[in-house]
Amino acid sequence: MSTPATRSRENTRARLLEAAAQVFAEAGLDGASVEAVCERAGFTRGAFYSNFESKDELFLMLTASVADARVRAVRQRVEEMTAEGALAEGCDPIELVQQVMELGGDDRLGVMLMSEIRIRALRDARFGEAYLAQEREMVASIAQIVDDIAAAVPLRLRLPAAVAARMLMIVWEGMTVRGAMAGQDDAQLRQSGSEELGHLVQLLVDP
Amino acid sequence: MSTPATRSRENTRARLLEAAAQVFAEAGLDGASVEAVCERAGFTRGAFYSNFESKDELFLMLTASVADARVRAVRQRVEEMTAEGALAEGCDPIELVQQVMELGGDDRLGVMLMSEIRIRALRDARFGEAYLAQEREMVASIAQIVDDIAAAVPLRLRLPAAVAARMLMIVWEGMTVRGAMAGQDDAQLRQSGSEELGHLVQLLVDP
Repeated sequence: MSTPATRSRENTRARLLEAAAQVFAEAGLDGASVEAVCERAGFTRGAFYSNFESKDELFLMLTASVADARVRAVRQRVEEMTAEGALAEGCDPIELVQQVMELGGDDRLGVMLMSEIRIRALRDARFGEAYLAQEREMVASIAQIVDDIAAAVPLRLRLPAAVAARMLMIVWEGMTVRGAMAGQDDAQLRQSGSEELGHLVQLLVDP
Repeated sequence: MSTPATRSRENTRARLLEAAAQVFAEAGLDGASVEAVCERAGFTRGAFYSNFESKDELFLMLTASVADARVRAVRQRVEEMTAEGALAEGCDPIELVQQVMELGGDDRLGVMLMSEIRIRALRDARFGEAYLAQEREMVASIAQIVDDIAAAVPLRLRLPAAVAARMLMIVWEGMTVRGAMAGQDDAQLRQSGSEELGHLVQLLVDP
């Protein structure tokens, strides 16, 4: 059970992350200062630094929270579909992916964060290592979902779940960034990302 | 046949692109000014603007030339391997990809350019459209190579060559950017990119 002090701390962190998402979307990573984030959230710099070591840490946490929300939405949808019996043998991979991905995350924000993080990580090896460690956890969560789906249908995969999960993540990211470059909104990003994931799932499943 | 005037113009463009690659690698896209590129190449701003409309156009051309060099190296290697009879039925997909990709392009420069271009394209729709048009041409060239390999071995692909080509490009890019974040050099980037491409080729080929 969480104590009131823990809850208050979590609430402060959540408000700072929410403010960071807004300021980042408006000003980009370079333009989003700790000051601007504190002002938006209504906290002092003291409150900020008792929760985050640095602006880098805040943005890594923001990226993790956007990715987590996406993974949690997918897991929830897969559980619902399993309960409804929608994960049955012979189901179409492209439709399956569309149903699994239809609960939206903030995909455009995810694309923008990931793009800024790339640049930062290419210039700063420590930041890159911290980002990659975080990403490995996300890939492990996706691999677990892939295993669960494969067991529920059941399906035989042509690659280990961890390799499949990384490839799914890379293809999703590659398609959504191109969609964002072409000016697509969140729903369209989800559509073009899902189509390409569907192609990959088709390949991954042993026919 | 090219005239001396055409050759001189091509030579000027090539020297400006070479200088742009160096300045960009040192200073990033924002830091690489037209002035700095001209100074490095030993040309005036007048010579620059009679060859390129803007700094954006120069960097799109630089990206195209890095991608072209990579695609040309792959095409040449595939022709050699076809002549040597190395593209035979039953060849291992992961080895095949490693042999095809072993003639290096400047992969680290490619990763850095692509990462900067993403940010620029997400902020500027016209730039994004110009980049995506250029990329579609590259995907068409890759699709042609995929078709040639499939005909030479012969192999049956489980996706249309154009869809396969886009996925191969996205997976290569996704793996090399992660390798670059982890501090890999050109040879290591090629290795991790090739391994993941090998997995994808394994999936693409009808067993």
